[in-house]
Amino acid sequence: MCEANAYILKNGEETLLMKSVDLVEPEPDGTFRLVGIFGDQIVVKGRIKRMNLVDHRILFEEEEYA
Amino acid sequence: MCEANAYILKNGEETLLMKSVDLVEPEPDGTFRLVGIFGDQIVVKGRIKRMNLVDHRILFEEEEYA
Repeated sequence: MCEANAYILKNGEETLLMKSVDLVEPEPDGTFRLVGIFGDQIVVKGRIKRMNLVDHRILFEEEEYA
Repeated sequence: MCEANAYILKNGEETLLMKSVDLVEPEPDGTFRLVGIFGDQIVVKGRIKRMNLVDHRILFEEEEYA
């Protein structure tokens, strides 16, 4: 299985958001909907910083607000 | 290996952009840099529409310009 783990980078630290992510979809409000292989869902406020598919990693980072 | 294939949706049709994508990184200019498992690179102008990791699919769509 080729699902990935999703992390978010905040203040220089990575926190695991969700394991075994299958689906990543941007929403019209600028968030991302993540759906896991078991159908579990979360919404991420942030932007994609990097995805390493071979390493099964999706890294988001907090949006900066001016 | 858990690389994915990248497609772009233009005028309702999907076209394969790149096979065996490992790394996806947004660039400051709003494009995405895709790096394949052999180090080959392309730049995609568009936005991410959907990623299905279990299906090894990344779908971009052309940006609409007003």
